[in-house]
Amino acid sequence: MHQYSFYVLPDKINENTAILTGDDFRHCIQVLRKKIGDEVSLVDGRGNIFHSTIQECTKTACTCRILSRETHTTDLNIKIILGFGLVKAKALELIIRDATALGVHSIVPLQTTHSIKQRLNADRAHKIAVESIKQSGNCYLPKIERPQSLAAWFKGLNSNVVKIVCDQESDGKLSELLSDSGSVKSIAVLVGPEGGLCEDELKMVFNAGFVSINLNPFRLRTELAVVAAISSICSLMK
Amino acid sequence: MHQYSFYVLPDKINENTAILTGDDFRHCIQVLRKKIGDEVSLVDGRGNIFHSTIQECTKTACTCRILSRETHTTDLNIKIILGFGLVKAKALELIIRDATALGVHSIVPLQTTHSIKQRLNADRAHKIAVESIKQSGNCYLPKIERPQSLAAWFKGLNSNVVKIVCDQESDGKLSELLSDSGSVKSIAVLVGPEGGLCEDELKMVFNAGFVSINLNPFRLRTELAVVAAISSICSLMK
Repeated sequence: MHQYSFYVLPDKINENTAILTGDDFRHCIQVLRKKIGDEVSLVDGRGNIFHSTIQECTKTACTCRILSRETHTTDLNIKIILGFGLVKAKALELIIRDATALGVHSIVPLQTTHSIKQRLNADRAHKIAVESIKQSGNCYLPKIERPQSLAAWFKGLNSNVVKIVCDQESDGKLSELLSDSGSVKSIAVLVGPEGGLCEDELKMVFNAGFVSINLNPFRLRTELAVVAAISSICSLMK
Repeated sequence: MHQYSFYVLPDKINENTAILTGDDFRHCIQVLRKKIGDEVSLVDGRGNIFHSTIQECTKTACTCRILSRETHTTDLNIKIILGFGLVKAKALELIIRDATALGVHSIVPLQTTHSIKQRLNADRAHKIAVESIKQSGNCYLPKIERPQSLAAWFKGLNSNVVKIVCDQESDGKLSELLSDSGSVKSIAVLVGPEGGLCEDELKMVFNAGFVSINLNPFRLRTELAVVAAISSICSLMK
């Protein structure tokens, strides 16, 4: 059965102790009513799980003594960088939750012609991702970037990253692209917003070295296409 | 761009006319304010799209004259039969919506030890699937079965169907199982409920010829595992 873990900020951890604050402190102490001496499992979102006991408790934080540390290397064989056209708040939250549970490396909301004019509440996004690593058992928090233009995203992508764009009209097969999957270490996946990318944007995308891929013959909503793309990559990399 | 289609019950269609009723009648006439003589596109959920014009209209139905019919064969190369442990109503609706958009052949909610005691509202499920075929452009409505036991489901599965069960603890690789994918025509996918299948159930599953598959190293919620499984199959069958 699933053992509940609490998220602790990496800068609140030193060799022997970790300080639990914020929502996870409240959940641990006020909801689950853990007491001094109780064992708790802590995660830092960077691959570490700390087995610890509660040592001291104030009204806003508790200090845990670290008994042991387990370090997990990332479980996926590939670094997945997810870019997607901004969608409405509810779909955006689903994307952050699901992409985190599936183990992506980073999440990049993109401002495109057809995307929703949507701000990203960074605190809320972080909270959703933390919940998702706790639920899924993935030990790594993805990096959630600020909404940015396609051009800005492309500029930041390393040249050795395989780049794909999901396109219902394409004949491109992910299985062929990844057939020599041993040599692929990182992949950037671009999923358009509802209404797709416009022609000028598609030109930019192909100029930046993206290859179009057909994941499914049907028209998938952005949040469904995101999950389909990540899952397909995971299954082909195995 | 996406052309809006209306769903018409197969038994309301004859060679020259189709009668639009129910929600899609209301959407067509009351919301979109279509008039006699307007062109409308109709789908029957069995692979047919009818280009037609509105000929007559009453308060509850309109008769459309069929101008032409396009018949689509199913776009996936494989028949996917999805069985999953019953989940809460909201997740159940997401599963029906997403599995339909991804093009599965049938959807089978399963009563298992850890699944939610949940009824299936057949009308509501049909409505969600209809919305999903209209949104996704998939021309086939999946068969949505009544909630049933594992034993009842297994009994109804054909012997030549490849059978997989998603299991986070397994080492099984879908890519290896489907490596000779040309010979696989149908696949039954079993996704457990939250909390998984119990030991006795797993024994039954393996006795029924299911092979365990690891889709992702993490603990996926049922609705996410369903999408991950279907997407992985689609990408490996191409």
